[in-house]
Amino acid sequence: MTGNDKAKQYGVTPQSQDFNEWYNEVVIKADLADYSPVKGAMVVKPYGSALWERIVRWLDDRFKETGHESLLFPTLIPMDFIAREADHVEGFAPELFTVSKIGTEVLDEPYVMRPTSETIIGHMWSGWLNSYRDLPFLHYQWGAVFRAELRTKLFLRTSEFYWHEGHTAHADEQEARGEVMQMLSIYHEFCRDVLALPVVRGEKTASERFAGAVATYSIEGMMRDGKALQSGTSHYLGQNFSRAFNVKFQSREQKEEFAHTTSWAISSRIIGALIMTHGDDKGLMMPPNIAPIQVVIIPVSRKDNVEQMVAEAETLAGELRAQGVRVRVDKREGLSNGFKYNDWELKGIPVRLELGPRDLENGVVVVKNRNADDKETLPRGEAVAGMVARLADIQAWLLQRATDFMLENTVTADTYDEFKAAIEAGKWVRAFHSGDPESEKQIKEETKATIRNEPLDGSEFFAEREEGVCFHTGKPSGYGKRVIFGRQY
Amino acid sequence: MTGNDKAKQYGVTPQSQDFNEWYNEVVIKADLADYSPVKGAMVVKPYGSALWERIVRWLDDRFKETGHESLLFPTLIPMDFIAREADHVEGFAPELFTVSKIGTEVLDEPYVMRPTSETIIGHMWSGWLNSYRDLPFLHYQWGAVFRAELRTKLFLRTSEFYWHEGHTAHADEQEARGEVMQMLSIYHEFCRDVLALPVVRGEKTASERFAGAVATYSIEGMMRDGKALQSGTSHYLGQNFSRAFNVKFQSREQKEEFAHTTSWAISSRIIGALIMTHGDDKGLMMPPNIAPIQVVIIPVSRKDNVEQMVAEAETLAGELRAQGVRVRVDKREGLSNGFKYNDWELKGIPVRLELGPRDLENGVVVVKNRNADDKETLPRGEAVAGMVARLADIQAWLLQRATDFMLENTVTADTYDEFKAAIEAGKWVRAFHSGDPESEKQIKEETKATIRNEPLDGSEFFAEREEGVCFHTGKPSGYGKRVIFGRQY
Repeated sequence: MTGNDKAKQYGVTPQSQDFNEWYNEVVIKADLADYSPVKGAMVVKPYGSALWERIVRWLDDRFKETGHESLLFPTLIPMDFIAREADHVEGFAPELFTVSKIGTEVLDEPYVMRPTSETIIGHMWSGWLNSYRDLPFLHYQWGAVFRAELRTKLFLRTSEFYWHEGHTAHADEQEARGEVMQMLSIYHEFCRDVLALPVVRGEKTASERFAGAVATYSIEGMMRDGKALQSGTSHYLGQNFSRAFNVKFQSREQKEEFAHTTSWAISSRIIGALIMTHGDDKGLMMPPNIAPIQVVIIPVSRKDNVEQMVAEAETLAGELRAQGVRVRVDKREGLSNGFKYNDWELKGIPVRLELGPRDLENGVVVVKNRNADDKETLPRGEAVAGMVARLADIQAWLLQRATDFMLENTVTADTYDEFKAAIEAGKWVRAFHSGDPESEKQIKEETKATIRNEPLDGSEFFAEREEGVCFHTGKPSGYGKRVIFGRQY
Repeated sequence: MTGNDKAKQYGVTPQSQDFNEWYNEVVIKADLADYSPVKGAMVVKPYGSALWERIVRWLDDRFKETGHESLLFPTLIPMDFIAREADHVEGFAPELFTVSKIGTEVLDEPYVMRPTSETIIGHMWSGWLNSYRDLPFLHYQWGAVFRAELRTKLFLRTSEFYWHEGHTAHADEQEARGEVMQMLSIYHEFCRDVLALPVVRGEKTASERFAGAVATYSIEGMMRDGKALQSGTSHYLGQNFSRAFNVKFQSREQKEEFAHTTSWAISSRIIGALIMTHGDDKGLMMPPNIAPIQVVIIPVSRKDNVEQMVAEAETLAGELRAQGVRVRVDKREGLSNGFKYNDWELKGIPVRLELGPRDLENGVVVVKNRNADDKETLPRGEAVAGMVARLADIQAWLLQRATDFMLENTVTADTYDEFKAAIEAGKWVRAFHSGDPESEKQIKEETKATIRNEPLDGSEFFAEREEGVCFHTGKPSGYGKRVIFGRQY
């Protein structure tokens, strides 16, 4: 699409009018991603890729700081590996991509494209592990995984998606469980401090566990339509996979034992969470801490001074870069200023600066925060010197807005009628539940709501310990606190 | 393998005795990579992955500096896309991985796992391109690609390997050819300045071109057995792919034109080149500029002062880190100093420091360069302050050694007998060749040697313009200079 074509098609369906349509349009029009000719797969475009690279970089640095090492395992996995852990194959079989021919050779034993890598990593570990001295294995890899999806939604539901998968092996359960909680904490910190996403840390119920896990923990965020999005998971796998793949070692006491393993992941879905938590009717709102472009400068020029004003804008950009700010000067030709303003608002750039000849003369610059209604005219030096603080303010504003929204749209319910009314109204519901899987299933069928998680003791949201009676079965609560129900992506 | 098992199996077959065996052992024993249960695919282990990450980081920074943008295209490609460019399908068909089932659904139109992405990128471009104002597209992606290999050799020949593939589209041939040469220069600079690999830049003959290219340029390095390894390629694709995928635009003159496209790549094979260019009988030699660990410190202790000496080693490490040096302290227990020395020499760490209680008392440290025979005992402050310069010296030494080796093992030949004798002796041969493809083919069948490339005018190696008579056909030289023949990996 050229600039002019885009101008014609300017604008997105307002978020408040049709959230799904807003999402689909904003992803395309902001140039984050596009549909591909491969069913269910997307193309991540430069703006989306720059965003993902920043996500990868932050997480990767934290993984390394906490002693983890990256590896690269094959994309293909022998089909029979998947079958070796009973729950695992049941969970993944319907989604597998099968490779049965290489060159002209038809394979006796087909491969699958990895839906996740516990199995092949377990296999490799069994060859690498001998003694407790070799442990822990603190491994992770970045890459693509493949799970068939019936309906594509860019970033949120694609057959191929991008992620890291962490895989660790430990000599005992306590250490493994410590790892699981450490990684959940890192995910929580990342969401809160970098993406400005308030998330609820908690444990999933048995029916929502990862296929093959003993315990699954998640972070859950609320989108602006009230639905939940599971934004990261961390699993304690017990000895399930180590038994299936013979990952054993000689203990300090000279006994043969199976390792306790974990796995954990955040995927490119998190970009969907970012979009759906922060946007507004005009488009995206990028949190400054992750924004590939934090400030955009629009040189406001007449036909006869384009080059001069671009040069002046570049000078201003240099002053901001010296403060560590990520800046882009919009030098595109043949587009109106109004189009450019709208375009960068749609892309969610936190701050826009406008610099015209008169501003230059007066030593001022026009400043527009993405989250503000009005422009400000500031002395240029002040605008530059205050930019880092301004960006921090916008970051805090976004986290506060999202937190307020989540709190305002979470209600308690003590009867099924209250529960259904709240779910229907797009709320999260805090309620007592017995823990009975059959009841969970029935509630899901009737209301499309599931237990998002049981908030962890001590976490900042919804974690109060409380006793009560299950709204659905009348049995005593199974968790010692209310759990979070919601519809989900 | 535990440390003790490794100690028992210490040592590698000397490079001078059996180069292939040396290579296979060194990759495994240095923990760079391992064989996997997937035919032809490897597992890249932490040391290899750290090395690859550093390669990726350097190149990625350069791509961005030169205005390129990263994207992520699907791993799968519709089979019929591959068939659309005639040379392309002929080149890749025998190596393709076919996906014909997703979940339980058998596909009418199978997908292939990408062997390279010109086709699907061409398809996407045709949707994105309208006007000359949209050009150039300066795109690249990092990822895995899949080409069946009959015999696995870790890093060098694996069915799945890692790379970036650059893809650019331009309004005219001149700009596209400029891009091709720019990327070849970046590859050359990377090999020379970072990996300490002397490489010959040049154009491939028609029979060695990329499937679908108008012109292919390569950088070729000489391994320590005299064989060549093509270490990077840059292709001018003309309008072949843009015609096949309808990548057209309205020119400044309002005419419809097809874009001129390029592609370029360096893959994880480059790690094979690094190993085979720099190693010696004891193992790897990592160039300091790419080494994940530049200096290893061995605390030399008795049983009663292990903790103290580790703490002292960490203090020393901190002093080096303050100089920007990448340091590892070897804290492994239950291993002899001798084992540790050998282990880190095998891994090719540029500098080893030994710190014992008496050294501490005397304010000295023992320094051993990987490329030197003898240890030095230096005042500690001097060793620390001189480390950056020492690493630079080792870097320069490696490039010089590899350059000398390449020059010493490249000979000229003017008759077929001279040619065959030199090839048989493991040399590169500079010779006049007619350019006749049939003659090239015959030479290859008889000697396994191919034309590596025609060195570019102005490049530092073997580029002198010269006229002469083809040693094989007696016809006049087709290149205005001698071309480089050699056996290849």
